[in-house]
Amino acid sequence: MTIPTPKSPIIGVFDSGFGGLTVLRALLPLIPAAHYLYLGDTARLPYGSKSRETIARYAVSSAKFLHQQGAELLVIACNTATALALEDIQQALPIPVIGVVEPGAQAALTANKELDPAQNWVPHLRDGLIVAKVGEAPQHSNKVDHVLVLATAATVQSRAYTRALNLLGLAAHEKACPLLVPLVEEGWINHPVTDDVLKIYFTEALTAAPATQTLLLGCTHYPLLQPAIQRVLASLGHPLTIIDSAHATANAVAACFPHLITTTIGEPTCTFYATDSIEKFQHLGSNFLGQPLKEVHLLDLGG
Amino acid sequence: MTIPTPKSPIIGVFDSGFGGLTVLRALLPLIPAAHYLYLGDTARLPYGSKSRETIARYAVSSAKFLHQQGAELLVIACNTATALALEDIQQALPIPVIGVVEPGAQAALTANKELDPAQNWVPHLRDGLIVAKVGEAPQHSNKVDHVLVLATAATVQSRAYTRALNLLGLAAHEKACPLLVPLVEEGWINHPVTDDVLKIYFTEALTAAPATQTLLLGCTHYPLLQPAIQRVLASLGHPLTIIDSAHATANAVAACFPHLITTTIGEPTCTFYATDSIEKFQHLGSNFLGQPLKEVHLLDLGG
Repeated sequence: MTIPTPKSPIIGVFDSGFGGLTVLRALLPLIPAAHYLYLGDTARLPYGSKSRETIARYAVSSAKFLHQQGAELLVIACNTATALALEDIQQALPIPVIGVVEPGAQAALTANKELDPAQNWVPHLRDGLIVAKVGEAPQHSNKVDHVLVLATAATVQSRAYTRALNLLGLAAHEKACPLLVPLVEEGWINHPVTDDVLKIYFTEALTAAPATQTLLLGCTHYPLLQPAIQRVLASLGHPLTIIDSAHATANAVAACFPHLITTTIGEPTCTFYATDSIEKFQHLGSNFLGQPLKEVHLLDLGG
Repeated sequence: MTIPTPKSPIIGVFDSGFGGLTVLRALLPLIPAAHYLYLGDTARLPYGSKSRETIARYAVSSAKFLHQQGAELLVIACNTATALALEDIQQALPIPVIGVVEPGAQAALTANKELDPAQNWVPHLRDGLIVAKVGEAPQHSNKVDHVLVLATAATVQSRAYTRALNLLGLAAHEKACPLLVPLVEEGWINHPVTDDVLKIYFTEALTAAPATQTLLLGCTHYPLLQPAIQRVLASLGHPLTIIDSAHATANAVAACFPHLITTTIGEPTCTFYATDSIEKFQHLGSNFLGQPLKEVHLLDLGG
């Protein structure tokens, strides 16, 4: 009897730039059997300051390209595109599309030890869409977990995390941290200036929301700052459970391929596309992926 | 006898965003008789990370719009657009076009007290183009002024300031300062974090170029940091003559309208156009212009 070899899925990962590589980084060890297509729309970044219509147009054209290249499941590894254009992308494509906001919010719920683990989110496919059993609001408890969300100004303005967290019965406080992405891109990941900036942002946020127990990193750049964040929170005497959307999203994707999570069929393979300078993409991207980027192609999507 | 009233010129000022408002701010008291049209291409900013072809396409379409609105002279109040697309814009428009790089370099030359003032730049119009008597290289002196240029990464990469300064016989050292624009946009103009960042950038730059006597601010955001820059240079014991391209460019424009410089015909009037959120443009823009922005119009240039 021949046991059929499970087919290796092709997973598309999309971001306006480099940050989504932290989601890919989390995916590689979880689903090593997959082939990954990553698109960074670097010629049109940042999406954060653009209108909803423009973001949707850019994100849909990028998503369609990855589908045309064979992607069978698409990860929107970008907070702004998820917050403002997830439904547009889901409507435009006949494949499952997973964003970063809902998995991040679900992971914050899971982190709340007060809740019954049986209520936690189990994502699965139905009619080509990711659906989930939403955890019930913790009405049995008077204690509502307060989640602090750090994100870019555009993501905070969209209130997408607040909506997702409130739906799960969690209280949310969102804090825009516009300097963190430039600091990461400058390479100042473990740097006294970055610690000072984090201290200012956390002092403001924790003064406004002192009941905070959980910290949600609502930007794909921020996982690179996790050691600095832990250092600063310790110095402020206010340790928090840290959730990053990158790992939460990777786990949500992995839950769609339960038969592949434990397989070790070969090494994961990746093809990268960037809409602006390949050299810059390779140079900066390797910091986010934690390994060199091979096979980067220049792509013209117009705009 | 009736003395004919000098016609009020319509001057177009273009930037990818807000920084060019520092050039407009310098122009208003110099040529109060003019009507100004300002366009911030905020839906497509930043230009700094885009390819030359894309920047030229964006900048030319923006420039054409200002010409269609009646601009008789156009100021490219954006270092990236000047460095990478000035010639494209000049070829596309039948009106004089002045960028920020050459006036900044010329002002650095003027600041060099060793040179004969008679050799300084006097811009004037010929065949619809701005032309100038270029100061001779100071071959009579062994002392070559060293100019430190602070600019964005894209402007530094273009080497436009180095070429312009070398043509005038000045030695140039360019330093990319990618955190300064985000710090200004965060509003941290007089802030200990900004002082720390400036101290790091200056220490690196002055170690690499210790003979520096003149500092050229090669980004339209940086004039807002002038008090912090002076404070940090004093703390380092290395005072420099500070030249900002915004004022140098305003002076170059004023030299084209010598009959209007001393007139006091009414108040200058301004019409603003932005390609993204009017509210954000009014809010952030007032910091750069030093006064509220009235009459801002939303403009769709596509892209």
